[in-house]
Amino acid sequence: MFRTLTVLVENNPGVLTRVASLFSRRGYNIDSLAVGQTENPTISRMTIVVEEDDKVIEQVTKQLDKLVDVIKVNDITDEEYVGRELILIKTDGDPSVRGEIMQIVEIFRARIVDIGQSSLIIEATGDEGKIRAIIEALKPFHIRELVRTGKIAIQRGSRSAAGKSKATE
Amino acid sequence: MFRTLTVLVENNPGVLTRVASLFSRRGYNIDSLAVGQTENPTISRMTIVVEEDDKVIEQVTKQLDKLVDVIKVNDITDEEYVGRELILIKTDGDPSVRGEIMQIVEIFRARIVDIGQSSLIIEATGDEGKIRAIIEALKPFHIRELVRTGKIAIQRGSRSAAGKSKATE
Repeated sequence: MFRTLTVLVENNPGVLTRVASLFSRRGYNIDSLAVGQTENPTISRMTIVVEEDDKVIEQVTKQLDKLVDVIKVNDITDEEYVGRELILIKTDGDPSVRGEIMQIVEIFRARIVDIGQSSLIIEATGDEGKIRAIIEALKPFHIRELVRTGKIAIQRGSRSAAGKSKATE
Repeated sequence: MFRTLTVLVENNPGVLTRVASLFSRRGYNIDSLAVGQTENPTISRMTIVVEEDDKVIEQVTKQLDKLVDVIKVNDITDEEYVGRELILIKTDGDPSVRGEIMQIVEIFRARIVDIGQSSLIIEATGDEGKIRAIIEALKPFHIRELVRTGKIAIQRGSRSAAGKSKATE
């Protein structure tokens, strides 16, 4: 089963290596990982999607929590959350197909962000299902290149990932 | 100076650890890293932003290229490319401030993706400058939580990152 973890870390050199090697040493498979700054530049936030059973996830969470750089680990899979990914897709784009592509772009609330002589770049955001669907819809126009960010997630309502840090527990 | 590298890798276990440790062992500082699947599920694509001088970047590129899992490294900093990042921001959102926030959202072509009793979640995409600007614009509404994907990038026009792989050179 796919589980979504959000990990708040101190932005120290090597923290990404330590987190990634915790997974790879044990053979746990990271499906996607996104890491970026938070509202505090000394703290980064990783969103990690892992495909493992509940027991493994419990172990991973405990082991992550033990790392010095890790401030807080949350398994938000069963929480109410907004999960989103960004994708850029380059397709064929000569004038004869542009109209059809623009319809798809509109249906998916996506955006065309570059037009070349014979190619287009499309930007879209969404959950896994929507991302999969837009890729499928654009396949007939020859996907020349595709890049994805990996999922980021944030809990709905007023709860927050930083709410219960190790420091305040 | 900030440099943007796109790295195509075989989707093998531990590849993220090997790439990350190449940077951390040498003390090179990763500013952001995004990793996701490509059009081929056995191949992932990393976009890495590093702040180092040209000489260091040249070394990093060569060392990355030597890793078995690495198919192709491109430093696209000086190329024409579309660079985008996704951000989710949770702010205060009681009815008295919603109107003002909705104006900001419209100006930045962002989207409100969740409304709680007293909070909102906003989704935005853009380059570094736009992301910085929307964070600044939303600060008066109390940023409760913020999560970013890190930058992904794709070359404009018909060139592609996979164009010259090690296999075809």
